[in-house]
Amino acid sequence: MKKNTPQILKGFRDYLPQEQIARRKILEKISIVFERFGFVPIDTPALEPLELLKGKIGEEEKLIYKFKDLGSRDVALRYDLTVPLGRVMGLNQDLPKPFKRYQAGNVWRAENTQRGRFREFTQVDADIVGSSSIIADAEVIATIKSAYQALEVGDVVLKINDRRLINLALDELAIPKSKHVAFMRWLDKLDKIGEKKVIDGLKSDGIKPETFKAYEDILKSKEPEFFKDLFSMLKDLGVEDIKFDPFLVRGLDYYTGTIFEFVLKSNTEFGSIGGGGRYDGLIGSISGADMPAVGGSIGLDRMFAALKEAGLIAPQTAAEVIVLNLDAELVGDYLRIATNLRDSGLDCEVFYEPSKLDKQFRYAEAKNIKVAVVYGKDEVKLGKAGLKDLEKKSQVLVDLENLATEIKSMLW
Amino acid sequence: MKKNTPQILKGFRDYLPQEQIARRKILEKISIVFERFGFVPIDTPALEPLELLKGKIGEEEKLIYKFKDLGSRDVALRYDLTVPLGRVMGLNQDLPKPFKRYQAGNVWRAENTQRGRFREFTQVDADIVGSSSIIADAEVIATIKSAYQALEVGDVVLKINDRRLINLALDELAIPKSKHVAFMRWLDKLDKIGEKKVIDGLKSDGIKPETFKAYEDILKSKEPEFFKDLFSMLKDLGVEDIKFDPFLVRGLDYYTGTIFEFVLKSNTEFGSIGGGGRYDGLIGSISGADMPAVGGSIGLDRMFAALKEAGLIAPQTAAEVIVLNLDAELVGDYLRIATNLRDSGLDCEVFYEPSKLDKQFRYAEAKNIKVAVVYGKDEVKLGKAGLKDLEKKSQVLVDLENLATEIKSMLW
Repeated sequence: MKKNTPQILKGFRDYLPQEQIARRKILEKISIVFERFGFVPIDTPALEPLELLKGKIGEEEKLIYKFKDLGSRDVALRYDLTVPLGRVMGLNQDLPKPFKRYQAGNVWRAENTQRGRFREFTQVDADIVGSSSIIADAEVIATIKSAYQALEVGDVVLKINDRRLINLALDELAIPKSKHVAFMRWLDKLDKIGEKKVIDGLKSDGIKPETFKAYEDILKSKEPEFFKDLFSMLKDLGVEDIKFDPFLVRGLDYYTGTIFEFVLKSNTEFGSIGGGGRYDGLIGSISGADMPAVGGSIGLDRMFAALKEAGLIAPQTAAEVIVLNLDAELVGDYLRIATNLRDSGLDCEVFYEPSKLDKQFRYAEAKNIKVAVVYGKDEVKLGKAGLKDLEKKSQVLVDLENLATEIKSMLW
Repeated sequence: MKKNTPQILKGFRDYLPQEQIARRKILEKISIVFERFGFVPIDTPALEPLELLKGKIGEEEKLIYKFKDLGSRDVALRYDLTVPLGRVMGLNQDLPKPFKRYQAGNVWRAENTQRGRFREFTQVDADIVGSSSIIADAEVIATIKSAYQALEVGDVVLKINDRRLINLALDELAIPKSKHVAFMRWLDKLDKIGEKKVIDGLKSDGIKPETFKAYEDILKSKEPEFFKDLFSMLKDLGVEDIKFDPFLVRGLDYYTGTIFEFVLKSNTEFGSIGGGGRYDGLIGSISGADMPAVGGSIGLDRMFAALKEAGLIAPQTAAEVIVLNLDAELVGDYLRIATNLRDSGLDCEVFYEPSKLDKQFRYAEAKNIKVAVVYGKDEVKLGKAGLKDLEKKSQVLVDLENLATEIKSMLW
């Protein structure tokens, strides 16, 4: 490395081929599932007017990347994909509703990197705008769940709660509206800091400690009736392993109804691998037209980390075949052979430099390539080519016109 | 639209479903071709240290989006995908070489929007780092060309030249090194401003007007010998319609050898739909290790515009099937029917609100959905469901267990 060469920015990552191939496949699988449920993709800019992002997400607003552009406009890198969706709905009021869109895109947050957090990550969101039907809630949840099944991440548990139910309990406990947010913030920390510290926290905010237990009792008593329809619909959509969690609140300020999160059954410690909820006020507050909405999000990078931890990211192959370079005079033949193999649907490389065979084999191995085509003066005379299986180290001689067929039989 | 609602930033675009579905398909097709040639994907951050981007791209550097982040670091939105590749090569010196990578990603340039330019656009780049072989040049060109074929954009013409050949001529004409860049900049404008203005421009920079013609003569006389090997390799790779263009120079400062561009044969006015060249110094200047490189780039947005202009972007379907909502009591049935159809591989929506049928049909039409499942009290009694072909307006009654099969026969 050259001295003083600029490094990658803290909190940012490169994805090298092994990882990026896997990420692309994950993204493709999620897209297929989302489209299966009738969601269609949109894309929005990385930069938005700062004004759009302000006052939407609560205290995390301080993490927004913001600056003045060359025209002195206040701009910001998008923090999530939901607020831009509000802008899109405002600018395109003629979109047929409910508008079911998904979006895969990066978001940026100036997180504290010392806690292992990243500042750029990829989210895949599915949202339904313009329906207040509970069927929409059920469908969003089933969509996210189906994506996990397609990704074969193993069993997942759906944790569910409802902001309306929480508010009902807080009203019943006569906790003033001004303290609702504080109450929920402490609840949100239960997994991390434990019951005792949550109760201490409530006390520090002037909330009676006994409300903690009372809150749990109220929610548990109301749960069966409250979730009857939603749980029945989820069952009809094939969603199992549902766990009502009175302490699930989710961070964002804008949720107004159903809230949910998915965790890995085999590794609940790993935490949320996705979630979402109903937010009936946000889109209208941006677009100016009242539009109820419900949505869910899969964090691609957390998903990727989970799959990696579970050993489910297989080593990836670059090309399937390499045409070795034995003789500079035969380059034309190598290129024609490669063209034929590619036309027959094989991913194929040609080795460019006429290096020692040893070096060429090492390159093929390093790249996980399965088959090498060996074609030198001897093979030309025979009108055949050698095919080397780079795993089994075996080699066969094959007529040139049968090359593609033979390679496919070796690969598949 | 609400008063004072933030708009989209000037020079930026949203992609609504019709367009985004098409863009996704274009990107997928390009990826398949690039992998066919042995390129593997990587991804890099949107933000880079400003220092990395400085001094690499010439006068266009002023278009870089730059700012200080919360930690007072000078950062910038990436301007292209080539400079970040240099950083990746520096940080990962153990990558097997030649390293053949592709990257699809957005880049940002604060262009003048009054000339119809955009400030965020998607590039798809394929580069080979670590080989000075001319085979690599030929393969990059064939890769890009094959992508156009896969996209069915119609016939394309390859325009080709070489910076080494240009330098040879400039030396022969005794044009001082200090004026090479100026000479090339005027040449680059030939298509836009015509020969007369180019010659005037050369004069204004103190270059004799007769050098223009002399330059053309020298290049044309040297062409056959100079490009013999490359053209022969391109032929072996199936690349036809090659046009040597002595006035092709390409804007970027860092090219050192082969340079090329593709234009549509039926619409050369449309301008470049992609191009690239050899740049042997750039990667080394960033990574510190000498690494020759050659690469090409397809501008996804220009590609998309070209396909649209040629009428090759078909209207896109969202879901294929919609389950209509005739009776609130049957919602469970609708969800189970939808789940079965999705499991059988059909993209399926459920209508959430129990609205008038009229409204539901209008929604389905607006979204280009092909088939509607009609299931009300009458159909329940019969144990059948109605299937309405929304284009032909015809309807049939089908046993529930045959729904998926019947719909597929209607769609395909």
